[in-house]
Parts: sequence; C-alpha cells; structure tokens
Amino acid sequence: MTHGPVRVTLLTDFGTRDGYAAAMRGVIASLAPGVVLEDASHDIAPGDVPAAAWALGRYWRLYPEGTVHVVVVDPGVGGERRALAASCGGWFLVGPDNGVLTHALADSPSARVVSVENPAYLLHPVSATFHGRDVFAPAAAHLAAGGALELLGRAVDDPLLLPVPRPERVGELIRGAIIHVDRFGNLVSNIPRAWLDVDVEVSVGDMPIGPVRSTYAAAPPGARVAVIGSAELLEIAIRDGSAEAALRVSRGAEVTVRPRRAG
Amino acid sequence: MTHGPVRVTLLTDFGTRDGYAAAMRGVIASLAPGVVLEDASHDIAPGDVPAAAWALGRYWRLYPEGTVHVVVVDPGVGGERRALAASCGGWFLVGPDNGVLTHALADSPSARVVSVENPAYLLHPVSATFHGRDVFAPAAAHLAAGGALELLGRAVDDPLLLPVPRPERVGELIRGAIIHVDRFGNLVSNIPRAWLDVDVEVSVGDMPIGPVRSTYAAAPPGARVAVIGSAELLEIAIRDGSAEAALRVSRGAEVTVRPRRAG
Amino acid sequence: MTHGPVRVTLLTDFGTRDGYAAAMRGVIASLAPGVVLEDASHDIAPGDVPAAAWALGRYWRLYPEGTVHVVVVDPGVGGERRALAASCGGWFLVGPDNGVLTHALADSPSARVVSVENPAYLLHPVSATFHGRDVFAPAAAHLAAGGALELLGRAVDDPLLLPVPRPERVGELIRGAIIHVDRFGNLVSNIPRAWLDVDVEVSVGDMPIGPVRSTYAAAPPGARVAVIGSAELLEIAIRDGSAEAALRVSRGAEVTVRPRRAG
Repeated sequence: MTHGPVRVTLLTDFGTRDGYAAAMRGVIASLAPGVVLEDASHDIAPGDVPAAAWALGRYWRLYPEGTVHVVVVDPGVGGERRALAASCGGWFLVGPDNGVLTHALADSPSARVVSVENPAYLLHPVSATFHGRDVFAPAAAHLAAGGALELLGRAVDDPLLLPVPRPERVGELIRGAIIHVDRFGNLVSNIPRAWLDVDVEVSVGDMPIGPVRSTYAAAPPGARVAVIGSAELLEIAIRDGSAEAALRVSRGAEVTVRPRRAG
Repeated sequence: MTHGPVRVTLLTDFGTRDGYAAAMRGVIASLAPGVVLEDASHDIAPGDVPAAAWALGRYWRLYPEGTVHVVVVDPGVGGERRALAASCGGWFLVGPDNGVLTHALADSPSARVVSVENPAYLLHPVSATFHGRDVFAPAAAHLAAGGALELLGRAVDDPLLLPVPRPERVGELIRGAIIHVDRFGNLVSNIPRAWLDVDVEVSVGDMPIGPVRSTYAAAPPGARVAVIGSAELLEIAIRDGSAEAALRVSRGAEVTVRPRRAG
Repeated sequence: MTHGPVRVTLLTDFGTRDGYAAAMRGVIASLAPGVVLEDASHDIAPGDVPAAAWALGRYWRLYPEGTVHVVVVDPGVGGERRALAASCGGWFLVGPDNGVLTHALADSPSARVVSVENPAYLLHPVSATFHGRDVFAPAAAHLAAGGALELLGRAVDDPLLLPVPRPERVGELIRGAIIHVDRFGNLVSNIPRAWLDVDVEVSVGDMPIGPVRSTYAAAPPGARVAVIGSAELLEIAIRDGSAEAALRVSRGAEVTVRPRRAG
C-alpha cells in the first residue's frame, strides 16, 4: 500500500479575502511542515452551523485514514463553548462544540472526544475572536504530526449535537423534511433510499413533484424531479434549474411521500 | 531535472459549500495517496459548459506533463452522455462528453480518448447525480497513479466538441465574436493577434472601441480599450472598469475590425 | 526539526473561473515541481490594492520561513509600474509595485527589494495583460527553487507604500479610522490594544458602540460591540450580525475612543 502525506482539510465560513483562512494554513504549515493542506470550503454562510455539519458529512470518510478535518464555523468564539478534537475511526475532527461535528460524531459511536484546552498546544496570546488561528489550527497540527489526542485536554462525553429531524411513517405516508439546500438549488430531504421501495408520489409542502426518477435526465428541462441523491437520500430538483428558486423552498420544508394511486 | 509529484486539477461548477468538491478530493486522495490536488475552480456558473471549456484551455498545458485535469460541469449527469478520459501529449483530461474538453481536444490532434465505463474503476454504488465523486474522481486517480488509459474503457473517436465560432474576413473587414467574458468584465474575442497586423478600428456591435492599444494603461481611466489579451486574442475592456457592465455585452456579441480611415 | 516542502501562496483579484489563477499555478508547478501551491485568496475585490495589502499582512509571517508569497492585484498591469520581489527575514514577497506589499514591507525594515526585469526569468512572450502568469509566477518559482533574489533584477530602494492612517491622541480622545472591513462586516480600526489601557467608550462616526468587551459573546445578539480583534487592533462588530450593514460604515470611517464618564 502506498502511503501519502497526512492531509488537513479546512471548512470555514471565513471566505478567503481577509487572510483568515491563510493564517490558519500558515500556522499549520509552520507547526507540521510535511502536512498537505486542503480547502474543503471557506464559503459556508456566516454562522451557518447546520450547513457546515452537513458538508463535513459528505466528505470526511472519503479521505484517507489519518486525515484531520478542521471545521470553524464559530459564531460563539470567545464565549463559553468548548473547543473539541475527536478521533473517529482513523480520522480526526477539530472544531467548536456547537454542533458542526454532528453528522460525523453521530456516525462514530466509538469516537473519543476531548476539549482543546492544554495551553502547550495553543497559539499565544489566544485572541478573543479568532480561535481558528489560535486554537483549532495548532490542535490540528498536533494531531496531523502524530500527537496524542489526549494531550490536548480532558475527555468530553457530551459534545453538542444538533437535533437532526428524522422522517416518520404516518399510515401509508412518509413525512420528512428538507435538511439541506445545495448550490444548484437542489433540495435534499432526510428520507433514505431504503424507505422508498414502492411506487410513490413525492410532494414538497403542497407542491406535487411526481414519482422518484432514476436521474435528473428522466425529466424534461425545467420540470420538477425527485431522485435519490448522492447522499442516498430523496432529493427534489428542477432539471437544469434551481428548485430552491422555482419552488421557494428552504431548509425545514415538509416533504411527503405517498403511494402512487391508480387511475 | 527535478520531478515533482503528480498533480490533479479540478474544475467544476459545484461551488465548495456543499462538500461535493471535497468529496472528489477525498476519493482521489484515498485512491492515489501521493497525488497533489489543485482546485482550478469550483466557481463555473452552474451548467456553463462553454465557460469551463474556455477556462481549461487557459491552463491545461501550463502544468507539468503528467498532470491530470478533471472537469465536471455536467448538467446531463445520469443521462446518456458518456464519461471521457483522454491522453493529450503528456497530459490527461477527464470529464463528461458534453464539450467541456473542446479547446483542449481541438489543440491535440493525436489525443487518445476513451469512455470511462470499466466497473473496476468506478466507485460503487454509482450515484445518479454525482459522477464527479463516483466516476471522474476514480478515473483521475487511476491515471494519476500511472494506470493505463485503455483500462478505463473503449476508445472513443467522436467526442462531442462545442461549435467554436471562427472569425472571418469580409472584404477589408474582420468579423468575429465575443467568446468569453471574464471576471473583470473583459470581453475576449475570437480574433487572433496574427490577423491584426495593420492599423485598425475595433467595434463591438455598433459601439466604437478604437484602435488596438499595447496595454490597458494606454487608455484613460474609464475609457474603452482594445488590447491583445493573454490568450493572444483581441480583447475589449474598460480601463479600471467592466466592459460587460458598461457596454452591456455578453458572449456571442459581434466584433468588427476595419482599417483605420485617414481623417 | 522537520522540514517541509517550500510553499508558494497566491493572493489575487482574479477569481478562479477564468483559469487565470490555475495558469499561474501551472507555470509555478512546471518551473518548480516540488513546490506546494496554496491559494491564500483569489477573491480580493477587483483592483482593491489596500484590501490585498491588509490580507497579506494577516498571514505572511505565520507561514514557515522560506515561503514565497505572491500578490497580484494589479490594475496597472502593462503600464509603467515596476514588478517587485523582496526578501523579508526568511520570507519572500512578489507583486506589483503599487502598494500591495505595504504592510509586509513596513514590518521589515531590513527587507531587500528588487525589480523583476531579467528576461531570463520571464515567460515569453510577456503579455500586456497578465503579468501574474508571465512575470510574477516565474519570479516566484525562481525564488521557491532557491534562486537568488538579485538575479531577478536591480535593487529598488523606493517601493511604493500606501499611506496608512495612524491613530492620534487629541487631549483625552483617541482618533482613529476603519482600515479594513471583513467578510463578516466587522470593522477593523487602526487603534492598537496598547492604546486602550483605561475604561473607554468607543464611537464610530457619531454612533456610540460602548466599552471594549473581552469578546463578541459579552454583548447580546444583535448588539454593537467593540473588541480587540485578531490583529491586536480595536474592532467594531454586531454580535451575530454585520456592523458594515447595520451601521452603514466603510473603510475610512472615523473611530473615536474617549474615557468613560461616571454616571
């Protein structure tokens, strides 16, 4: 087996234009010079913790084991919230204790989580406004360089997890919700493929979408289409358009799936 | 000569905030751990195949030989369009068969092109909506790791090429078109430097621009200026401004070049 | 001590979608194959030299010594302005002579600066519009590969530095200015922490902000708050909001700090 360098991915709401993301990269490159830095994104909407948690869920386990995933969407920076680092299977996660690690931790029942607080691994003086640079970057560098998780701080057994809406069956119906809207305006629901084993009709709010198609291309351009998306969840789209714009739907909207009626 | 690592560049319309681009990177990093990943852009307008083809044309041969360039602007994902991989001189290209590789293939008469279809090199289950992760990323990793192009699938001798408007001479006139509008609002035409060997006057639509200047700075701030741009093509700009906004011109607009008349 | 690869960071106003940034990366990767390329940002507002200078100041010394920082925000490309390369402590800087290196050079009294003009280190033909590719990228590759600064061109002893407004004391008052507005709408002033050693009241224009708090979280959501930001400067924010939008303030606005009055 070929081993590559350790990679550290960054996911933030910093944008790039102020130099904040580059400052984080510089700190990590200085503390762990052989590490490869990867920008997952710096384009999370400011403070949108659920969107960051969702995005992290899309990629964290696709990277090689040993990768350190840093997430800094941190509207509570400087306040009481803890800073977390976690070992999940072979991967590491670093971020504030505000829910950004929700999906990753929920998929990792045996994760070990600690509070990042050991002054030996912080950048001093620790600013009140930029823990990405002063707390999370050095913690990530420590882990990427092979340092022990436990050195960063005390064990945490109650990391904050966002409430994730679950779909439910009500008689013949499935009731779910839109849990993510992507850059194309596709509406991702929480209804998994496994629940969709019969001929069904999908609605969003009171708008009929139609049956579950095998692909966007099964619908004519401009039409509404329901498909199983890349997260193995039911997704509502407009072929070659934006369902978000056309249907005026956002995160939290209700999705209903019912058996298809004859005639 | 110093050899560096193999690089894989990514050009998509995914944005970064949904984790799709990071998912592609994770797949490639897992399958080809020593590879260096580079984001060319994830900011192509959704579905804008000509813009992606243009952008690829700007950089693909500037990278070292051996580089794998992946382009995923793929509104037809899941439909009938093929997935392509190509060897062009020393470089590799990977993307959907919808024209995104047009300029690169047009400049590579001896390119070898195959259809990516060998199940051994796909990520299973192959989703209906995200071939970037499940088809193009593993194909790129295969090539970056030194795997043979032909293992990916059957030879293709008719890749889809976008129609590229050619300039024409009509008597003393040259008639061309705007083929790209860049982020600064500069209007790039299809008229090459070699056609511009005399004193000329340039117009866009019915708007006079003036002669071809040696540089933007040869025009006063706010003025219209024609220059030879970095693609060796005639380009129309507003000094310190946006020609797209000021002239209300977009891709496809007519450009006319005529001999300069004496007073 | 572990040594890592040499890193080259790029900071531009190019966006990414036209392939310009990737062209720069390709040139550097070809000329200096072992170098690691890092995008600091391509999202500086077109032509905003002060914003680029500010961003560079946030990260350049956080990277390991030996890093080459390239800045291309260059509205005067093709005109008379010089191209600069500089050695500042252990770091290198490359960019146009228009002020983009201001903060970095101001912090480096012993910097050596040269004009990039040796044809042996330019990419020919040098375009009139894209010195990022043809001038700055090859100069950066030369330095990243260990080449001597002096080979690039003649010494420059008068690099252009932007006027940086300084705060002043007027009796009991401190008068300063907003020098940067970040992506969150936070307003960064030029008043350093060291000037703020007493109980004070902060105003922006004629809008009272209040005392200097230890953290954003010390203010209720939606409230105005003054804090010491990550650059060790007084910063004005709206908790969980944008001070830029709420206060309608931009770069250059006046900031006043006065002693707090008893009741």
